Amino acid sequence: MQDKIEAMKRLRKALEEGKVDEDIIDLLEEINSIEGMHTTSSCSGRIGLMETPEIGAKPHARWLLKEHREISVEELKSSLKKAEKGLILFKVQSPILHVVCKDLELARKLHHHALQAGFKYTTFKTIDDLGRTLVEINSTEALSVPLGHDGKILVNEEYLPFLVNCANLVLRRAKAKLDRLRREIAKLKEELSSNS
Amino acid sequence: MQDKIEAMKRLRKALEEGKVDEDIIDLLEEINSIEGMHTTSSCSGRIGLMETPEIGAKPHARWLLKEHREISVEELKSSLKKAEKGLILFKVQSPILHVVCKDLELARKLHHHALQAGFKYTTFKTIDDLGRTLVEINSTEALSVPLGHDGKILVNEEYLPFLVNCANLVLRRAKAKLDRLRREIAKLKEELSSNS
Repeated sequence: MQDKIEAMKRLRKALEEGKVDEDIIDLLEEINSIEGMHTTSSCSGRIGLMETPEIGAKPHARWLLKEHREISVEELKSSLKKAEKGLILFKVQSPILHVVCKDLELARKLHHHALQAGFKYTTFKTIDDLGRTLVEINSTEALSVPLGHDGKILVNEEYLPFLVNCANLVLRRAKAKLDRLRREIAKLKEELSSNS
Repeated sequence: MQDKIEAMKRLRKALEEGKVDEDIIDLLEEINSIEGMHTTSSCSGRIGLMETPEIGAKPHARWLLKEHREISVEELKSSLKKAEKGLILFKVQSPILHVVCKDLELARKLHHHALQAGFKYTTFKTIDDLGRTLVEINSTEALSVPLGHDGKILVNEEYLPFLVNCANLVLRRAKAKLDRLRREIAKLKEELSSNS
């Protein structure tokens, strides 16, 4: 598959440039070691603070903080100080992986194992005329919290430790599923090799 | 399709009991008028306040407020007074529709039109051995805001009008897509009839 060769080149480049979340690299390698399957993009889950002209205007968003790990209250406070213009939005996002499968049969197997790992929002995102299928492995954990606008913070200081605590808990839970996914991918690999 | 007959019985019963969101009824009827396609569940988008033992423990959540329309600051304030135990979570959710299609070909057509209508999270949720496909029509607009716990509200009063304003804006945007979806479904129907 020419697609896979190109995707793997891009992945190697991103790895060299340190652009891949460290806690997901071995999982990507495991998935890419399966014939007929390759990853095209991924995020291991993150906590962020963004400024956006208006709600939902993601393409014009500016990140004030973006970390693929738990954060401290101090980090959030100092990031909030950078806010200038637009809506200030605090976000927690689950891990997400895009995996191209050569056919629907293989995609359905991956879908099954990702659901088993607790990624309840795993879906077939696109299916082309040849049956090549993009599986999105995704979960339900997320927070999206407007905190103020035009540099003005509208929550009190007391709220921030509570919010950071919630966010870290959500991220921890979501990331715990990555280990389960690793085990499920190993099972899938075994299944496929015993069938061939 | 026996499935469709059963699903339509359930829908008629839900309609009689006033359990279907009014602003989505004609859309459901339009989709169900297409051969080989039927809806199994839907929500026209909502704003809610829930209490949950811990974050992500949805099955044990208790709703303090749940409306499929814009809300007032007063409504939110009086709902917050009902909070007793657990995490208090404020939520805005986009419209969501589940549509069973008899085969992947029809599902892909519906998927295309739903994307055109701005439902960017439209996916193939499940595909069975016979090719019968569940399409989830979904969008990206959502808020999920922890407000406090065990009856204690951790945001100040000044924050609530700002939050309600954000929520109403998100809901209005999301619901506006329902009209675009109606037009896309009409196009799909035309396409299908001119091909048959």
